[in-house]
Amino acid sequence: MKIFEEVESEVQSYARTFPRVFHRAKGEFLYDEDGNEYIDFLAGAGTLNYGHNNAVFKEKLLEYIHADGITHGLDLHTRAKAEFLETFNEKILKPRGMEYMMQFTGPTGTNAVEAALKLARSVTGRENVISFTNGFHGVSLGSLATTGNSHHRGAAGVSMAGSSRMPYDGYLGEDIDTTAYLDKVLCDSSSGIDHPAAVIVETVQGEGGINAASIDWLRNLETVCRKHNVLLIVDDIQAGCGRTGTFFSFEEAGIKPDIVTLSKSLGGYGLPFAVVLIRPELDQWKPGEHNGTFRGNNFAFVTATAAINEFWSDDNFAQGVRAKGDYVAKRLEQIVEKYGEGNFSSCGRGMFRGINCVNGEIAGKITRAAFQKGLIIETSGADDQVVKFLCPLVISDVNLKRGIDIVEQAIAEVCAKEDHIPETVDYFDDDYQIEAGDEEHESMKRAS
Amino acid sequence: MKIFEEVESEVQSYARTFPRVFHRAKGEFLYDEDGNEYIDFLAGAGTLNYGHNNAVFKEKLLEYIHADGITHGLDLHTRAKAEFLETFNEKILKPRGMEYMMQFTGPTGTNAVEAALKLARSVTGRENVISFTNGFHGVSLGSLATTGNSHHRGAAGVSMAGSSRMPYDGYLGEDIDTTAYLDKVLCDSSSGIDHPAAVIVETVQGEGGINAASIDWLRNLETVCRKHNVLLIVDDIQAGCGRTGTFFSFEEAGIKPDIVTLSKSLGGYGLPFAVVLIRPELDQWKPGEHNGTFRGNNFAFVTATAAINEFWSDDNFAQGVRAKGDYVAKRLEQIVEKYGEGNFSSCGRGMFRGINCVNGEIAGKITRAAFQKGLIIETSGADDQVVKFLCPLVISDVNLKRGIDIVEQAIAEVCAKEDHIPETVDYFDDDYQIEAGDEEHESMKRAS
Amino acid sequence: MKIFEEVESEVQSYARTFPRVFHRAKGEFLYDEDGNEYIDFLAGAGTLNYGHNNAVFKEKLLEYIHADGITHGLDLHTRAKAEFLETFNEKILKPRGMEYMMQFTGPTGTNAVEAALKLARSVTGRENVISFTNGFHGVSLGSLATTGNSHHRGAAGVSMAGSSRMPYDGYLGEDIDTTAYLDKVLCDSSSGIDHPAAVIVETVQGEGGINAASIDWLRNLETVCRKHNVLLIVDDIQAGCGRTGTFFSFEEAGIKPDIVTLSKSLGGYGLPFAVVLIRPELDQWKPGEHNGTFRGNNFAFVTATAAINEFWSDDNFAQGVRAKGDYVAKRLEQIVEKYGEGNFSSCGRGMFRGINCVNGEIAGKITRAAFQKGLIIETSGADDQVVKFLCPLVISDVNLKRGIDIVEQAIAEVCAKEDHIPETVDYFDDDYQIEAGDEEHESMKRAS
Amino acid sequence: MKIFEEVESEVQSYARTFPRVFHRAKGEFLYDEDGNEYIDFLAGAGTLNYGHNNAVFKEKLLEYIHADGITHGLDLHTRAKAEFLETFNEKILKPRGMEYMMQFTGPTGTNAVEAALKLARSVTGRENVISFTNGFHGVSLGSLATTGNSHHRGAAGVSMAGSSRMPYDGYLGEDIDTTAYLDKVLCDSSSGIDHPAAVIVETVQGEGGINAASIDWLRNLETVCRKHNVLLIVDDIQAGCGRTGTFFSFEEAGIKPDIVTLSKSLGGYGLPFAVVLIRPELDQWKPGEHNGTFRGNNFAFVTATAAINEFWSDDNFAQGVRAKGDYVAKRLEQIVEKYGEGNFSSCGRGMFRGINCVNGEIAGKITRAAFQKGLIIETSGADDQVVKFLCPLVISDVNLKRGIDIVEQAIAEVCAKEDHIPETVDYFDDDYQIEAGDEEHESMKRAS
Repeated sequence: MKIFEEVESEVQSYARTFPRVFHRAKGEFLYDEDGNEYIDFLAGAGTLNYGHNNAVFKEKLLEYIHADGITHGLDLHTRAKAEFLETFNEKILKPRGMEYMMQFTGPTGTNAVEAALKLARSVTGRENVISFTNGFHGVSLGSLATTGNSHHRGAAGVSMAGSSRMPYDGYLGEDIDTTAYLDKVLCDSSSGIDHPAAVIVETVQGEGGINAASIDWLRNLETVCRKHNVLLIVDDIQAGCGRTGTFFSFEEAGIKPDIVTLSKSLGGYGLPFAVVLIRPELDQWKPGEHNGTFRGNNFAFVTATAAINEFWSDDNFAQGVRAKGDYVAKRLEQIVEKYGEGNFSSCGRGMFRGINCVNGEIAGKITRAAFQKGLIIETSGADDQVVKFLCPLVISDVNLKRGIDIVEQAIAEVCAKEDHIPETVDYFDDDYQIEAGDEEHESMKRAS
Repeated sequence: MKIFEEVESEVQSYARTFPRVFHRAKGEFLYDEDGNEYIDFLAGAGTLNYGHNNAVFKEKLLEYIHADGITHGLDLHTRAKAEFLETFNEKILKPRGMEYMMQFTGPTGTNAVEAALKLARSVTGRENVISFTNGFHGVSLGSLATTGNSHHRGAAGVSMAGSSRMPYDGYLGEDIDTTAYLDKVLCDSSSGIDHPAAVIVETVQGEGGINAASIDWLRNLETVCRKHNVLLIVDDIQAGCGRTGTFFSFEEAGIKPDIVTLSKSLGGYGLPFAVVLIRPELDQWKPGEHNGTFRGNNFAFVTATAAINEFWSDDNFAQGVRAKGDYVAKRLEQIVEKYGEGNFSSCGRGMFRGINCVNGEIAGKITRAAFQKGLIIETSGADDQVVKFLCPLVISDVNLKRGIDIVEQAIAEVCAKEDHIPETVDYFDDDYQIEAGDEEHESMKRAS
Repeated sequence: MKIFEEVESEVQSYARTFPRVFHRAKGEFLYDEDGNEYIDFLAGAGTLNYGHNNAVFKEKLLEYIHADGITHGLDLHTRAKAEFLETFNEKILKPRGMEYMMQFTGPTGTNAVEAALKLARSVTGRENVISFTNGFHGVSLGSLATTGNSHHRGAAGVSMAGSSRMPYDGYLGEDIDTTAYLDKVLCDSSSGIDHPAAVIVETVQGEGGINAASIDWLRNLETVCRKHNVLLIVDDIQAGCGRTGTFFSFEEAGIKPDIVTLSKSLGGYGLPFAVVLIRPELDQWKPGEHNGTFRGNNFAFVTATAAINEFWSDDNFAQGVRAKGDYVAKRLEQIVEKYGEGNFSSCGRGMFRGINCVNGEIAGKITRAAFQKGLIIETSGADDQVVKFLCPLVISDVNLKRGIDIVEQAIAEVCAKEDHIPETVDYFDDDYQIEAGDEEHESMKRAS
Repeated sequence: MKIFEEVESEVQSYARTFPRVFHRAKGEFLYDEDGNEYIDFLAGAGTLNYGHNNAVFKEKLLEYIHADGITHGLDLHTRAKAEFLETFNEKILKPRGMEYMMQFTGPTGTNAVEAALKLARSVTGRENVISFTNGFHGVSLGSLATTGNSHHRGAAGVSMAGSSRMPYDGYLGEDIDTTAYLDKVLCDSSSGIDHPAAVIVETVQGEGGINAASIDWLRNLETVCRKHNVLLIVDDIQAGCGRTGTFFSFEEAGIKPDIVTLSKSLGGYGLPFAVVLIRPELDQWKPGEHNGTFRGNNFAFVTATAAINEFWSDDNFAQGVRAKGDYVAKRLEQIVEKYGEGNFSSCGRGMFRGINCVNGEIAGKITRAAFQKGLIIETSGADDQVVKFLCPLVISDVNLKRGIDIVEQAIAEVCAKEDHIPETVDYFDDDYQIEAGDEEHESMKRAS
């Protein structure tokens, strides 16, 4: 551990929550150097939908390396890339009636988002991009402008222009369809919201607190985009690749995004990988206009191809995910009824779910207690108030139950010690009172 | 007229609507070169609250010029400035229990707004400023970022950072108090709305369509600002100086803005003039930090002093304005009941009022018809859909009636010729349907 | 004086240097409340080329006010405006073979600059504007991006994008023609200087330290602009209206700017006024796209017309300015030879001249000493190191001599008390050594 | 090949220049599907300093995968990371007397640059970053602001603020030390170059045309940074990891950057990987402030560790690189003397070298001819005018000679067919004439 303290930057985050040195992993399990086993309900923040080190993919990867397959080839054509393109096209796109061009960006989600935003702006000649409250799209500067989190935004050190923020589904209370608000500002030439190039949206906001947009809202959002000739970008980096029970998270809504970003679980094995799917008529990139040394990670082509062949050749896997998702949903409902004095709530869709514990302090106690019991699970949301259930989709039923049982025990313990679980504030309740803060701005001082 | 076509830029606007050469004005009347008389319901877009060329102010100004008083003195101390400061302090600020420092900026409203925004950012060390849908604060680049109008925004040619747009009072329908939304995003650290330096607001939006915020909303807005330690800037450039029936438009609400901008009618005689009122503890300007050659227009000091002495030494004038405002309100209510198939509506506060005619085409026909009858009156709003009643506050009762009568006749004529007055869209009605536009984005082409 | 301390903002600047209350002015003289007379070598920072309260203009203005001429008319056509347009066209533009459209912006220089930048960006569809080291174009946000002064820039509180800075004439030493550098970066597609909409330049930098560009440099600058299809904007706000010995400061160079901004002395009487001159094919403004309540100050139309008729109907005035300019130049040369141990230098062109005293401390002592002797004179430059001679162009020969004599005495006194006048640093001298500062960044702390 | 045309985006670049499907690689060789062998003088744009699929690293990687070592662990501590940290610290940092904290960013160079810029801005509280003409630092928005290439910049679609461009070493001709210019603008408070957080520099500009800064210039640059308390960021992504003959490219200059970015060859095997080295007192990151799913690529930890152990345990490898570098230098000198009519020139340092062929057309013909002869080699520079020699550092002497021989033959052939090789323009030559372009801006049209 000492070397990490001595030489690794203070920027460490997960390593602080789970202060162990890990060295081996398989399926839904992680092992530390002392041989302790942990069930993994974090799953690489959504990167390990197929679990750690899947044996089938591993075999393909070992073969490829043995044979001195191209490891690094910039964006040169390689056999591994060809096989991935064919497989993705035949098994993912065509069966869904989709036609997209694929761009391999630098192998990080944020790079795919940067490319998507650039292309949307470039094709439309407009600058503004609509993003949503609690959205998370990465922390490089272009993506960061669309990300809501102030912790991340605060480090930019330079103005972030080009994005207007709109309330996500449910943000203004149940009675307001926030796409009507979007429609209104786009109809209103003095709304101050410049005619946008695009809307960028997650169908389920992961980092933002496992907020799942309703199917109707997604459809209305697409309709507003079409009405105003605005591109619809679905950032499916965390919600895609099966997490919600279908390959793309927007399949149930039946919408057709103009641009889709994918990363995280797409590579299958946890390897850096990212793509942008582009409607053919929008593929107006000039050669090399968006580039990057590691675009097209050939190892990931190999494992991504294996993953699609293994899990997406038929609907069995997706059905299994949906079934497990239902199980998780049911369990979480039971938990929030039983604990938290009625103030906890469950949220999410498919196997992308959470328990909103009102505040981050309580949620943090729960995840720390769970870790003591051998479960790795994290929080999300503005205040880290949501316990995030993000286990590998391939988890066995037994281990899924074991993991949830651990969380339930942790919650029981934490709630037993809490005097009182606070209620979630409802800003749009008639009884809600805004109260002036203590710190009247007497203390306002010129920033140095 | 020829010289205007030959040499004056295409940027002309009012001159297109009222294509005459004017050369004399008095009180509520303008006269063109052919001797035609016009009642002025435009009043310099709110600059001529005391009418054209008030005889008392005129006398003071002539005296000053005769005596070779300082015309241009940069920001040097002058006797004229001293008298203005004393008069404003004694007759405006002190009786209202207000304490502010006064900054003389370049003599335009937009320059005062630029200064207010700078100071707010500088004092707080924050960048973001909350502005509202349909707000108008000027077209120099800093102000333009907070202005909603796309016609003006479209000419910027560079990204406008540093402002987040929020819905003004009523924008999300009657059921939503939009300050609750503001409170929520400021409480929510991943809302994507960065902790702002300030909120900038008009109590009645003039250019945005004569939208009057409710007194409650203004109070709630102040409470939200205090709660989050955010400065409250009231842009009182158009609504101030008596337009709503009190000197400051926010007096009825009883709020205490941190910064107030004034211009337009402040100079009294229509001369360029602008000030920023600053709570003393926020007056953290460094010497000359915001400067400008014409800051402190001495002629305007003279006429502004005269205006305050003449109209604000007691409450008589303000009472008269409120009475006239009530009359205008009543007449407009009658008009919207009588014409427009129930789809017209009246709006505004005090003598800052309008008739919303649903669309700009109808409103434009009305103002053109009124001009033929000797009335100068303009439209405002995103679609120029509001006929804007902005006559001098000193107008005689007779001429006020005459002017409104002319508008009523114009409306009667226009409505007689219209087949059908369309309804205003209610985006938040349950029956509202978003419909996809004709122009699907097949036509999307890369911007050159 | 008390009222200024109590109620006027800390932003005051000139008022600090000349702590008197002024109340009357005539020609080259200012008078304070105690009846003291001051020769004015500041002249409203270039606004009073024709002196204070010129009797001829005054008569015209009084007549106009008496007759209730339009004071405020937004951008409506008025007789006063027509007369100005005709006079300017006939007596200024046509004799010089110039054809421009005239835009009346908000009556401040910075507003004219904002309009010029917007138009250039809008017409070209490009964002970048080349500005120069030590340039000053105003402090509203759009202009501020092109202004060099860090004191002013520091208050912006938001990123200022859209301008690339280039070295002004002489900035890289005598051997480098900095237009060659500009040409190179514009030829070089990876220079990082985006193809600009325009170059904005002062022919003599006033606030930047009375740096006069050479005639050759101006011609080369125009050639580079033409070569790269970039608009040339001359900001002639301070250097124009006769200051350098011709109406426009660029006449000697024979260049034809695409856009010219004028303000300051254009109004003649010190009244707020500003125009943008636009080559006819570039006048692509949409109606009202750039607007402002006080655009077109009718009083200033009257006095500006009078000024042109009085001073620009023939070449006599301009010849007189050139003769006086030669006298000032000769005197300043003598002074810098005599004082300052060879380290002072004179600078400027026409009657726009200065003495560079190496540092601001020395220059400040000189201007303070001069003020004690009845002369109002200011400094300029990054370090306020230049004593700026900016007297009215109409000054009598006797008073011009008196004023310079006062400065010479002040310099003599100050230099007598200084141990040593430091040399100006020559960064491009082979012997120049960069030395590391004391404050190694041990002290680097995260900004709060 | 068909699948690439059908499904891969138009953004492809290298794939257009080398239209083959590759599938195997070893050392300095690439093999296509038809079994053709190519010598690789592109080396993954500097990513393959140790050649393709190095046998030692491969063995380590296979072992790790076999053993189910952690593949994806977010930023959790892993044994693989610990070993990398220890090895890098012991074998790279300590022997060079360096002390840095290491941050693992998203595994792309541009992400490391984004992190470096953020940290510099955050720590200093300043926004501006000095970047250089022809610099290349990546294409995500934050990095792109510092990148010079207009092809890449043109796609941003939003203003890029926060960077001021300065001329790189040699850009203003041989007589001007451009660090003196930088020193001058930083001393000059109205230069318009805001006090920067940092300078970001490549010691040899790869994409910008193999421009090698002189050792003196680098030292002067560091001195200027220290003098003005500005952080020095060396982007060693392409020039680092031995390319110039030492591990870091700045070792010869003896400078101590505050922040260093590394990527490309750091991972050893061509796997996505990037780090930021931070002086300990600057490591003021808050936990997770800059994050990313794939930060810390464990496979790359394994191969990077192997690479350091294999090549950097003593100085033998570096000596070999320097020797080969000298050979390349000598050969290129001979070539430019022999061909190109005296207008070609050689450039670069160590094994980071090129031949400047004046224009991109000629350079492109040369690289295409070389490809026909079995050599993969690319161009760089603003106009793609430089043939870039970037072979694996481990290349055998025989193959190095073979590769250069091929280029020489290609040059010979191309030059034989050219009528005339144009001269490079010297903008700072006294005889240089700027000439106005054909396309006078008659054609200026308002951008739609």
